[in-house]
Amino acid sequence: MTRIGLERLSLNQATVKHAGLREAVALCARHDIPAIGLWRDRVAEIGLAEAVAAIRAAGLHVSSLCRGGFFTQADPDDADGRAAARADNMAAVFEAAELGADTLVLVCGGLVPGSKDLGLARRMVADAIGELVPEAQRLGVRLGIEALHPMFCADRSVIASLGEAVDLALSFPPDAVGVVVDSYHVWWDARLTGEIARAAGRIVSYQVCDWVLPLPADALLGRGHVGDGMIDFGPISAAVAAAGYDGYVEVEIFNADVWAAQPDRTAATVRERFAAVLGGNGGQAD
Amino acid sequence: MTRIGLERLSLNQATVKHAGLREAVALCARHDIPAIGLWRDRVAEIGLAEAVAAIRAAGLHVSSLCRGGFFTQADPDDADGRAAARADNMAAVFEAAELGADTLVLVCGGLVPGSKDLGLARRMVADAIGELVPEAQRLGVRLGIEALHPMFCADRSVIASLGEAVDLALSFPPDAVGVVVDSYHVWWDARLTGEIARAAGRIVSYQVCDWVLPLPADALLGRGHVGDGMIDFGPISAAVAAAGYDGYVEVEIFNADVWAAQPDRTAATVRERFAAVLGGNGGQAD
Repeated sequence: MTRIGLERLSLNQATVKHAGLREAVALCARHDIPAIGLWRDRVAEIGLAEAVAAIRAAGLHVSSLCRGGFFTQADPDDADGRAAARADNMAAVFEAAELGADTLVLVCGGLVPGSKDLGLARRMVADAIGELVPEAQRLGVRLGIEALHPMFCADRSVIASLGEAVDLALSFPPDAVGVVVDSYHVWWDARLTGEIARAAGRIVSYQVCDWVLPLPADALLGRGHVGDGMIDFGPISAAVAAAGYDGYVEVEIFNADVWAAQPDRTAATVRERFAAVLGGNGGQAD
Repeated sequence: MTRIGLERLSLNQATVKHAGLREAVALCARHDIPAIGLWRDRVAEIGLAEAVAAIRAAGLHVSSLCRGGFFTQADPDDADGRAAARADNMAAVFEAAELGADTLVLVCGGLVPGSKDLGLARRMVADAIGELVPEAQRLGVRLGIEALHPMFCADRSVIASLGEAVDLALSFPPDAVGVVVDSYHVWWDARLTGEIARAAGRIVSYQVCDWVLPLPADALLGRGHVGDGMIDFGPISAAVAAAGYDGYVEVEIFNADVWAAQPDRTAATVRERFAAVLGGNGGQAD
């Protein structure tokens, strides 16, 4: 049974959506959460230097920066649009380096506007990651390709299964490119255990939240606290551990009810569920 | 370029949800649609013998009967529940035989109530199909395992990718078990072309509708007329043809707006889009 201790807990900032960076940092300190997953918009609000200072002063580790990617939003013929996207991704790599983030999470983008060509979109993603690799290597940042759930394939990520993310990562040097395993996006996959094994040495982040039913009207917000839904975390955690990942485990929840709750209540629940479901007995809530 | 002629068009009855069987049959006749996909509840409304007579009188072909399955709804320890489910599936096989349906579509069922064990659910599906195979062979019915989109994994089908459906089908005799390729459920899969190739000789139905954005509040109803969404039908149709499938192509649309439309309007649109997108130039709407 894989037991994940609270010393590996990280709170992804999106779980307390309405808290600014300083508030989220203070929340982690109050709840003895040793790491945080940051979002670029919240970093930008107070400025990168201030964000770095706040994180360091709190003694927090940055388990990820969300996010780079959306490599397909500019048409292949739109040189300016592609240059702007590349510049923004270069800036994201720089921010991840300054923050000492374990990875820069990449949400790769959906279909190219006006096109239904999945192959084109996937080639653009591969090319764009290739363009980022030298900068990532220069600054010591690992890019984390995140497979999103197939229901987001058209509009958010043509990388729609872990196997595809692994295939893509394996085509780049391991110091520069890995994969993010997010329970919400990949739990359904009959080939998941094998794909996680194939990702050995390439897993740069393990993110957790639960799949709750019914799906909400906004499909982006159907994520629940660990233990509130249908995901059996035990086998996924065991596979991730067997693949050699021993880094932070981020709780990232997009859910209108969770966002409406008091952040201290949310942080306490995150900690309790992490201990019970991931730390306690390997996957089954009490 | 794979061009699918209108002589291969089938209207799945669910596309005109509010029409009874006789109305749907008459609709096909009026719109020169040579085949129909039937639903068991609509057959039961008028009785199996009457349904068979109505179909024969109209000279219609039955491309599928929807549906058997939901093999995981009764707990493994609930002998009565499992017996009832088996009896209902046996009845479905019989109905498919009487109707001369090309396949009995199987929607296999989600997680077992009270369990998060995907492996258990998947083993129960395999066992239940195995129990149906002798009856299917005796009556000359081919069972069609349908992979549903992964967003339905928890509550409707733990068979969540075509590859998984193919693996399962290949463990049974080809005269008894095949797979249904439904564009809506599988279009996102980077491995789709290879999985369709692996299904050669096992494809018992090709169903089409489009993936429209944004996803509706009820995730079951996010299907659009062919050409209204994001799916590139050309490569899928080409792969299905290359795998040797030359049977009917069913248009099956779950969509509140389509259901609210006049059935004659819907049938006309189905025909127009089929000709334009599937028959015209292999995938791109005009």
